Amino acid sequence: MSEIRKDPTSHTWIVLSTERGKRPSDFREREVGPPSALRPCPFCGGEEMAPPEDVHAIWPGEIDKRTKGWKTRVLPNKYPALRPGIELSQAEADTIYHLLSGVGAHEVIVESPNHEDTLATMPPSQIEAVIRTYCQRYKFWRRDPRVTFVLIFKNYGVAAGASLEHPHSQLVATPIIPPRIFEELEEAKDYYLRNKECIYCRMIKAEAEAKVSRKVLENDTMFALCPFASRFPCELYILPKKHAAALEEITQKEVSDLAKMISKVFRRMNKVLNDPPYNFMIHVAPLRTPGLLFYHWHIEIIPRLTMPAGFEWGTGIYINIISPEDAAKALRQAK
Amino acid sequence: MSEIRKDPTSHTWIVLSTERGKRPSDFREREVGPPSALRPCPFCGGEEMAPPEDVHAIWPGEIDKRTKGWKTRVLPNKYPALRPGIELSQAEADTIYHLLSGVGAHEVIVESPNHEDTLATMPPSQIEAVIRTYCQRYKFWRRDPRVTFVLIFKNYGVAAGASLEHPHSQLVATPIIPPRIFEELEEAKDYYLRNKECIYCRMIKAEAEAKVSRKVLENDTMFALCPFASRFPCELYILPKKHAAALEEITQKEVSDLAKMISKVFRRMNKVLNDPPYNFMIHVAPLRTPGLLFYHWHIEIIPRLTMPAGFEWGTGIYINIISPEDAAKALRQAK
Repeated sequence: MSEIRKDPTSHTWIVLSTERGKRPSDFREREVGPPSALRPCPFCGGEEMAPPEDVHAIWPGEIDKRTKGWKTRVLPNKYPALRPGIELSQAEADTIYHLLSGVGAHEVIVESPNHEDTLATMPPSQIEAVIRTYCQRYKFWRRDPRVTFVLIFKNYGVAAGASLEHPHSQLVATPIIPPRIFEELEEAKDYYLRNKECIYCRMIKAEAEAKVSRKVLENDTMFALCPFASRFPCELYILPKKHAAALEEITQKEVSDLAKMISKVFRRMNKVLNDPPYNFMIHVAPLRTPGLLFYHWHIEIIPRLTMPAGFEWGTGIYINIISPEDAAKALRQAK
Repeated sequence: MSEIRKDPTSHTWIVLSTERGKRPSDFREREVGPPSALRPCPFCGGEEMAPPEDVHAIWPGEIDKRTKGWKTRVLPNKYPALRPGIELSQAEADTIYHLLSGVGAHEVIVESPNHEDTLATMPPSQIEAVIRTYCQRYKFWRRDPRVTFVLIFKNYGVAAGASLEHPHSQLVATPIIPPRIFEELEEAKDYYLRNKECIYCRMIKAEAEAKVSRKVLENDTMFALCPFASRFPCELYILPKKHAAALEEITQKEVSDLAKMISKVFRRMNKVLNDPPYNFMIHVAPLRTPGLLFYHWHIEIIPRLTMPAGFEWGTGIYINIISPEDAAKALRQAK
């Protein structure tokens, strides 16, 4: 069973997940090489792969009306960092240490039955099914009072931490508000109290009007930009133009526009960066707070082209060697 | 010239350092392979490598009394993230954005004339020279009123971001207190106000007395432990037993004990983890605050065996698959 621990000397939390039974000496051999191209791929599988009921996984996700086959589905992670079905409890491991039971969830969202698909190559209609599946999972986890936050994310490519090729996202539900989200909520609330405006709404306006713009793309309802303080070369955010704190507030028109935007963004990234490894993270308000006036859901995409090292780990400051202005320009021009 | 930028939506700061003249499309080819074994190695070089005066680099660092050759020296970084000789200025890049000029410093501390040396193989007397050189650089930068914080760190191995083999550390001096240090100061001050005791002093006591200990090693003046909320497998801290906020307050006895401790720690890491890549960071109080009652300098060592991915970047929570209790046990037993 995993544990959630707080570092007494910083704002850091960890999930101690020893389910894989690894020992320190197992790291003597360094894993290298491409993601497992193992066949049969566990995410290509059919009905026999249906997960047990007790992990709350749903199957199928969406059905293709034409072929009657599945379009997306949700499976339990084989090595869950956090699990449902556990009592949320706190314990002082020692007078100075703080720990919680590892309650939560860890799911895999299979994005397509097609093993070779990527967000750059699948049709926008398939990406729409993925977005609707995300919304379904937010709504599902909103009902669990022990869960406070849900992160949906995606690791693509070995250098970004992917261990399987088949297109998939992951979901982790946590009983705490994660430090990174807490920071965003703090900054957004502070800005809202001073300016009576959402900082993200303001940022979209600023980038739409700027002379040297960091805007990459926009359509009727979605906006893509390289953030002013990009931590990584070609870091990119996608935000809804209409203020909303949670992805599950999205309309059907927005689902369609977001799918087209994701498709275009990754096709352009492929042109500029040649199929880069990346992490894709959806930031939403903590659960059960839709309608929040000061927070604005968004997708953060970080191509993993450079390596944070001692300076970044030691300070929390990121050295970036490509300006977001140059990155946005290259992505705008990559039609 | 580089810029320091603050993200308006989080506590993140970045250094935008475009000195290398890279463009987004330069990332189409991914760099792989071992650190450059280029000869002549720029850090093996002799007097012709002496840096220009205007970068404040010193040469030589320490001289070997026996051979009359240098033991350590300090060179400017070829691609400095931050530079001295620039006015510290603030500018609002836009109504919501905040930026500073890239003032500071970026130095290389060559740890030995011997290209093949590592912290695990060099004699403790050589490590003592390295520690004294670190102290000299803290004292040097303390005098510059524009500099607020100095991070000394070391990247070892390709997977930890090292680009050159020759044993070296780096120093970056910043005009801001970095977010990670700010967090530590906040938590330490808070604990001190409630308990009239330094949290790090308390942690050393707790680990010395614990039944299931995370202690790895101790000698007269130094203590090594795997922190309770280790972010990475076999993460390790070295702390002085006597309270001190800054490394430059160290005594000669402590220099000697720290050198022996560093040597032992890396020899044991090699035994358990087979020459792992690692980042090594020295956390000290901001400059011009020696004697701080609530902060305690320490060295953080993170072996780079696992890869933070979407979950870690999206939440700031770290999934660790090895408990610090198991890591400490393995390192204690690796004699």
